[in-house]
Amino acid sequence: MEDDLLFQNERIDDLQLNGMKIIQNPDMFCFGTDAVLLADYASKAIRKNSTVIDLCSGNGIIPILLSQKSHAEKIIGIEIQKECADLAKRSVLLNKIEDKVEIICDDLKNSEQLFGKSKFDVVTCNPPYKEAGSGLINKSDPITIARHEILCNLEDIIRVSSNILKPYGKLCMIHRPERLADVLCLMRNYRIEPKRLRFIHPSINKVATMILIEGAYLGKPKLFLDPPLYMYTSPGVYSDEIHTIYNRKKSE
Amino acid sequence: MEDDLLFQNERIDDLQLNGMKIIQNPDMFCFGTDAVLLADYASKAIRKNSTVIDLCSGNGIIPILLSQKSHAEKIIGIEIQKECADLAKRSVLLNKIEDKVEIICDDLKNSEQLFGKSKFDVVTCNPPYKEAGSGLINKSDPITIARHEILCNLEDIIRVSSNILKPYGKLCMIHRPERLADVLCLMRNYRIEPKRLRFIHPSINKVATMILIEGAYLGKPKLFLDPPLYMYTSPGVYSDEIHTIYNRKKSE
Repeated sequence: MEDDLLFQNERIDDLQLNGMKIIQNPDMFCFGTDAVLLADYASKAIRKNSTVIDLCSGNGIIPILLSQKSHAEKIIGIEIQKECADLAKRSVLLNKIEDKVEIICDDLKNSEQLFGKSKFDVVTCNPPYKEAGSGLINKSDPITIARHEILCNLEDIIRVSSNILKPYGKLCMIHRPERLADVLCLMRNYRIEPKRLRFIHPSINKVATMILIEGAYLGKPKLFLDPPLYMYTSPGVYSDEIHTIYNRKKSE
Repeated sequence: MEDDLLFQNERIDDLQLNGMKIIQNPDMFCFGTDAVLLADYASKAIRKNSTVIDLCSGNGIIPILLSQKSHAEKIIGIEIQKECADLAKRSVLLNKIEDKVEIICDDLKNSEQLFGKSKFDVVTCNPPYKEAGSGLINKSDPITIARHEILCNLEDIIRVSSNILKPYGKLCMIHRPERLADVLCLMRNYRIEPKRLRFIHPSINKVATMILIEGAYLGKPKLFLDPPLYMYTSPGVYSDEIHTIYNRKKSE
């Protein structure tokens, strides 16, 4: 079974979570800690029987993790790059979670057209972090597309989220601190009120390198800060909380 | 000399900084750590011969500290409450810094009219943190006015700052994390680009309780996070950095 789903240059990684696996291809974008952190963060916003969509879904890591970390009824992953979406679809089959997770290869900007307005309880997104810039050499390279705002930008993601979220539905994102003002101001512009914010630091006394943010569509203004999350206690040694996050499953 | 400047219910506190003192009245707002943190933070944005204005200046703590912590040529403090401005004026005389520091009793909303457009290199503000709300009992109480947005609000402060700052001049503020989205979005609305952000935590693993922010009028978008500032290493024991901040004078 596994061999039938695996193509050249691909490998299967064990996610150490209820036996879940993921097919990855090093020529494309392989998931990192940010995806694991976002899935765990978003899982707290997902109630029983929620309908969830993951924008910029890549190889499907977020939907696969959320299938085990949340009580969502349905999780859709939308990915514009055919090769990535194809990987994700095969990982769904490999994990036998096709009753819960569906991967759609399309432009996220078509989401309202595809799914309708006010359809989702939670939107997740681990977006391209970097602005497109002018010095990009290969704008068709899958890794470049995953990292840079080439096929979509932050405003697209937030505008689309506000269109497809139900009232008080949540948008959960991870991003870089240097884009914090962009994230907060765009959310407000599209009536997604920033509600929770968490900074992720490599270690104590180090500057935060990532932010986790949750906004509520039509929510009231008041931002709650979560305590800082420190990745490492000493070089190469993950903090207890990171271990907990990697292993946390849905509550029974 | 000191007795001549001191009225009933007032006391003189030693600021432990080049012999500087401040007259305080417990019936009004007495300065806290936030003022000391803001003055130190803003001092880094103040170049030699800069012209600085402190909005919501209260008893003048920020101008007094900045007179010792920066090479500013002129520091104006504007305070709407007559009794507070009067305290501040007497502290300026007490410290013999009237060549450098001037306290003006007026509404900050008149600043453009009073000083003209594009006049200041740096604006500082330790504003009322809380929105006015509806449950306020005594809206004329000096402490209530210092804490709540009764006589001015965040938008007034940021709008006025954008009017009186020179291009690329800096606005340095301290505020509560729950107002972060308000601060960042209002700054952007008035073309003050958020450039630096620092979170102040009571201690490691505790949620940040204050933010220090620096924006540049007409600056380019890119936000730099400073490392977190931890106030205490153990209960009652200030961190080394807090000691440094309290004692830091201007570089010679």
